[in-house]
Amino acid sequence: MNEDHLIEELLKQVPLAQGTAGPGDDCAVVEREGGLLALLKTDAMVEGVHWSADTSPQRVGHKAVARVLSDFAAMGGRPGEFMITLVIPKKTALDWCTALYQGMGECLRTHGGLIVGGETSSSPEGSPAVISVAASGKVERDHLVLRSHATAGDAILVTGELGGSITGKHLDFSPRLGEARWLVEHFKPNAMMDLSDGLARDLPRLAKASNCGFQLRHDAIPCSDGCSTTQAMTDGEDYELLFTIGADRVNSLRKAWHRKFPDLALTVIGEMCAEHAGEQLEGGWDHFSDSIN
Amino acid sequence: MNEDHLIEELLKQVPLAQGTAGPGDDCAVVEREGGLLALLKTDAMVEGVHWSADTSPQRVGHKAVARVLSDFAAMGGRPGEFMITLVIPKKTALDWCTALYQGMGECLRTHGGLIVGGETSSSPEGSPAVISVAASGKVERDHLVLRSHATAGDAILVTGELGGSITGKHLDFSPRLGEARWLVEHFKPNAMMDLSDGLARDLPRLAKASNCGFQLRHDAIPCSDGCSTTQAMTDGEDYELLFTIGADRVNSLRKAWHRKFPDLALTVIGEMCAEHAGEQLEGGWDHFSDSIN
Repeated sequence: MNEDHLIEELLKQVPLAQGTAGPGDDCAVVEREGGLLALLKTDAMVEGVHWSADTSPQRVGHKAVARVLSDFAAMGGRPGEFMITLVIPKKTALDWCTALYQGMGECLRTHGGLIVGGETSSSPEGSPAVISVAASGKVERDHLVLRSHATAGDAILVTGELGGSITGKHLDFSPRLGEARWLVEHFKPNAMMDLSDGLARDLPRLAKASNCGFQLRHDAIPCSDGCSTTQAMTDGEDYELLFTIGADRVNSLRKAWHRKFPDLALTVIGEMCAEHAGEQLEGGWDHFSDSIN
Repeated sequence: MNEDHLIEELLKQVPLAQGTAGPGDDCAVVEREGGLLALLKTDAMVEGVHWSADTSPQRVGHKAVARVLSDFAAMGGRPGEFMITLVIPKKTALDWCTALYQGMGECLRTHGGLIVGGETSSSPEGSPAVISVAASGKVERDHLVLRSHATAGDAILVTGELGGSITGKHLDFSPRLGEARWLVEHFKPNAMMDLSDGLARDLPRLAKASNCGFQLRHDAIPCSDGCSTTQAMTDGEDYELLFTIGADRVNSLRKAWHRKFPDLALTVIGEMCAEHAGEQLEGGWDHFSDSIN
């Protein structure tokens, strides 16, 4: 089974909310009193999968909350309340836990988000530590961007450079909250998501949700130093924004972007097209396939 | 370190929301537009700690969401949106996962609550499965009950019988949502919580939060069949309601309760008193002490 198939099977078993967007987008979107939309997100990290035992706990803590902040960014939203669940073997050092929360605290103070609760639970000796973050955010109805509203003819863009995240960026990345807020206010994308499992896996998800195909300009894909195009497409954990916008708006977006964010690349990497008309991609990260392709 | 101390240390590291109630109560309480209060809760279960490998996955699924429903009950609230995080080794059978979600689905259909999202993540082979449930609920301001508003002279009551949960009730218990809603509408308690770690650990928490002491009538504690009073106080996972109410209201509450809920015991087990004037209790379940006392 792969991850998307597993989730599909599981969701058949439970009563689902009928919302603006549900399972499948970066966050769940729920209607609230007063016309506001709430964003709800849960995200877990596992020792040995998302970080290694010798990683500094501060960096692990940063990553745990920054991943969720990146999901709020992907919807055009802002962070609200956070709850942290920590599952650790009994013998875990208090210093490790404290440093973990220091890393979370610094990231939340920088980007927004407040802790309202959480839980600690013990796990059997030798188990990997698990950190699960649940958070609510909000977004004005006019600023909400889903991954399902791309249209044929849209330009496809990414922020930053892709690939090689494992050398450090997967721990230290900066969630693109400010950039996403600026985008939705000035050049609202038709569709957007954050790149967590690699362009080769995430772009097909965006295209499928939008009932579109896509055609990449492979030689335009911005690669991190020392990375091949294949690595840029499949390494995963880039936490950059992937979005589409009407092709006629690209030039003015580019000019305004470079004035506003001179240090962050913005690159057109392809075009959306009719469903089944574009190319197929394989690779990227899947938790339930047997290897990283 | 014990669990309460660990949480206290961790919360010093992070920016905290200033809410009506925060870390320490059964749920976090957050102000929302329109005068409503949102309840936020996260709760994790670990294989080998909260259930054993030979437990049917349906019962595990029931328990995972029923624990959170019990926390909403403890605040006088109602369930809303749920997100499920499932962390499992790659080789876990799809059938096991499907049955787990069936158990969750049945419990949510019975008691309320809708799934809006969630996540699956793999863990290294041999790791225990972890299920983390994050949920939001709501409660009218007039119906909210905290654990911190007991006063000296209050009667202390519990629903049902305590102890021996490990023989089955810890998996199959019914969250006291209906009973709690009736209570807050007709005989609003001064303080309330659900019994998850055992009366001997939970009652001191309620008393401490309320700046009170307590005096138990040990021979009045309702014991499950075959359980001693010590077991009733320390076994944990009862998921019954523990609450306090002005002593002058007990008689009329008892009469109305037995008409409304003839099959569920309601027992006065003691009185709240001035801080430091009552008794001390030891025992109950602590995730980070070395044994179950």
